[in-house]
Amino acid sequence: MRILIAAVGRLKQGPERELAERYRKRAADCGRAAGITAVDIVEIRESRTDNAELRMQEEAKAIVQAIPDRAVVVVLDERGTNPTSKVVADHLRAWRLESRPAAVFVIGGHDGTAAVLRQKAGLILAFGAATWPHQLVRIMLLEQLYRAMTILTGHPYHRN
Amino acid sequence: MRILIAAVGRLKQGPERELAERYRKRAADCGRAAGITAVDIVEIRESRTDNAELRMQEEAKAIVQAIPDRAVVVVLDERGTNPTSKVVADHLRAWRLESRPAAVFVIGGHDGTAAVLRQKAGLILAFGAATWPHQLVRIMLLEQLYRAMTILTGHPYHRN
Repeated sequence: MRILIAAVGRLKQGPERELAERYRKRAADCGRAAGITAVDIVEIRESRTDNAELRMQEEAKAIVQAIPDRAVVVVLDERGTNPTSKVVADHLRAWRLESRPAAVFVIGGHDGTAAVLRQKAGLILAFGAATWPHQLVRIMLLEQLYRAMTILTGHPYHRN
Repeated sequence: MRILIAAVGRLKQGPERELAERYRKRAADCGRAAGITAVDIVEIRESRTDNAELRMQEEAKAIVQAIPDRAVVVVLDERGTNPTSKVVADHLRAWRLESRPAAVFVIGGHDGTAAVLRQKAGLILAFGAATWPHQLVRIMLLEQLYRAMTILTGHPYHRN
């Protein structure tokens, strides 16, 4: 199973991009032993439309095109459930056992994610009740994916 | 009121330190209009003791020494409550109205925080149910403090 992060907006060169890349690489390296073939990021171009609803719909259309058949879709949204790191790892294990070709994690832009994407989601995931900037959400998600890989492979990074 | 972050461990030069400093500076700049005189970080030296419980106690002792009289203590701990960004802002406003000299946010080391610190806490704060590395918690906390300042001052950074 491949992990794909579909994120609206381009992360500029700088500390956010550096941290995101560090955790992406660690997740990919550690994930191989857990049957995860890749951890990739696809950046979706931000829509330039004035209307927020239309913007989200345009971005959603581009995101949907990036989702492979039979992939499980996970939407990052503060209205979602709020799992422990162990539960994130359990989800990944279950999807792999279902022979899902990919788990696609969707990070919306400034306006959030369109309802059509939340309806496709097998899981809506929140990092607590707080609001986070989407650049930070990308880093937080990649850290949780790396942590999940260490839980699945018994690597000592995660301690309870 | 001054905001003090007492964090165990030294953040090395690199993207984490850069991001933490960016949000610290923004929180301090924006906070002045909300009656926050400073946002400072004090790094507590990690204990070298072998025993985890003793390590936490040694670190707690150093943290307690950094807490001014009548300061409110906030401990970051995944067993804590999980407020929205608006609620974090409301807490800060309330503490300022109580004429607290400082709000001290405590970030423990690898082993977490000693019970004695959690007992002193006016608030135990979690960022969801996930486990986070303490370097990332520092960035996340500073972003939430900046966000709280923008909520208190009506700055457009935070949108619902």
